Amino acid sequence: MYPESIKLFIDTFSKLPSIGPRQATRLAFHLVNSGKANIEETSKAVGNLKNIKICSECFFIHSNSDNLCNICRDKNRKNTVVMIIEKETDLISIERTKKYPGKYLILGELTKSGVLESSQKLRLNSLKNLIKNRGGQIDEIIIGINPTTYGDLNALLISKELQGLSKKITRLGRGIPTGGEIEFADEDTLGQALERRI
Amino acid sequence: MYPESIKLFIDTFSKLPSIGPRQATRLAFHLVNSGKANIEETSKAVGNLKNIKICSECFFIHSNSDNLCNICRDKNRKNTVVMIIEKETDLISIERTKKYPGKYLILGELTKSGVLESSQKLRLNSLKNLIKNRGGQIDEIIIGINPTTYGDLNALLISKELQGLSKKITRLGRGIPTGGEIEFADEDTLGQALERRI
Repeated sequence: MYPESIKLFIDTFSKLPSIGPRQATRLAFHLVNSGKANIEETSKAVGNLKNIKICSECFFIHSNSDNLCNICRDKNRKNTVVMIIEKETDLISIERTKKYPGKYLILGELTKSGVLESSQKLRLNSLKNLIKNRGGQIDEIIIGINPTTYGDLNALLISKELQGLSKKITRLGRGIPTGGEIEFADEDTLGQALERRI
Repeated sequence: MYPESIKLFIDTFSKLPSIGPRQATRLAFHLVNSGKANIEETSKAVGNLKNIKICSECFFIHSNSDNLCNICRDKNRKNTVVMIIEKETDLISIERTKKYPGKYLILGELTKSGVLESSQKLRLNSLKNLIKNRGGQIDEIIIGINPTTYGDLNALLISKELQGLSKKITRLGRGIPTGGEIEFADEDTLGQALERRI
C-alpha cells in the first residue's frame, strides 16, 4: 500500500520511544504534505545530532572541544557531591531548581528487572575510578532515582555497589508535593511526610 | 543549557503534530545516545520522504513516474463514485475494508472554524473540473467526514459546493459500532441507529 520511503520512515520512527506506528504514519504524511524544504530541514535537524558528544565523566551531552560537559568543567561546582540519576531530563529538572552545587552521573533508564545493565555497571565503575583518583572518598552520593518500587530496589543495589566511597549515601526527600492535597496523597507518601516532617 | 544542535532538534520536532517540547527533548537524548549510525539512518528516513509525490487527482501519496497514485491509475476502480475524506490515514482505513470500489479526494484536515481553507477550496475545484471533464455528472459523491459537530457543518458546506455534479451526495452510515454496547452509546448514536435500523 505504501511507497518504500514511507514504509522506511514508519519503521524507523516506530522504534523511537513513545512513538507508535500510528503516530509515525501521521508524521510521515504530515512531512510529505509540508513540502521538500521542510523535509530537508527536519532531516538536517536529526543529522546534526551527530555533532553532540557525551561527557566522559557524567555522560551528559555537550558540544565542547574536549570530553567534558559544561557542568563537569565548571570549577565552581563541588567534586565532593555526586548525584546519580537515570536520564538527561532528570538532570535538567534538578538544574532548574538552581539549588544543587555538585556533579552528576547519568546512569541511563533502569529496567524493571531490578538488575543493572552492563552499560550501567560500566558507568558506576567509571564513577568509582573517578572517586578513587580524587582521594578514595567523597562527602555525599545522592541517589536521585524515582521513588517507585523498582526504583527503590535499584537504589538499594547502587548504594551497596558504592559502599565506602562516600561519607554519606542519601536519597531525595519524600513527602507531599508542593500544590498537592493531603486528601489525595497515597498512604506511603503521607507516611513519609509524617516521618520526615519539617 | 543545551547545545545548538539539540535546541534546533527540539524546535523542529516540537512543531510536528502531537509532539510537544517534552517528547522532542526525550527524542533528542534518545537519538544522541543511540549512536551516530542510528542518527544517520533516522535522518535519511526523513530525507527520503522528498521522493514522495502527491497524486494530481486525489492528492494521496505515491512514488510513480507519472502524476497518479496507484488508486487513481487503477482501471478497475470506478470513476463514477468519489469519496471525500480529510486525511491519508482515513483512506487507508477505508481501503482496509476492501469494500470500496471508487476513487477518493483527500481534502486535508478541517479546521474547527466551519470555513474551508483556500487549499481545500482548490482541491474541491480540481474535483469539479475532473467531473466536468468526465461528462459533468457522476453517480455518487460520498462525504467521508467524521460525524462530529464541525464535521457535520463542513459536510453540509461541501455538499452545497458540489450540488449538481453528482446524482447522489451521501455520507457514511451512523449507528452503534461493531463490538459497541447499547448501554454506553450516546443518545444521538442510538437515535441514528434506531432511524437507520437494518
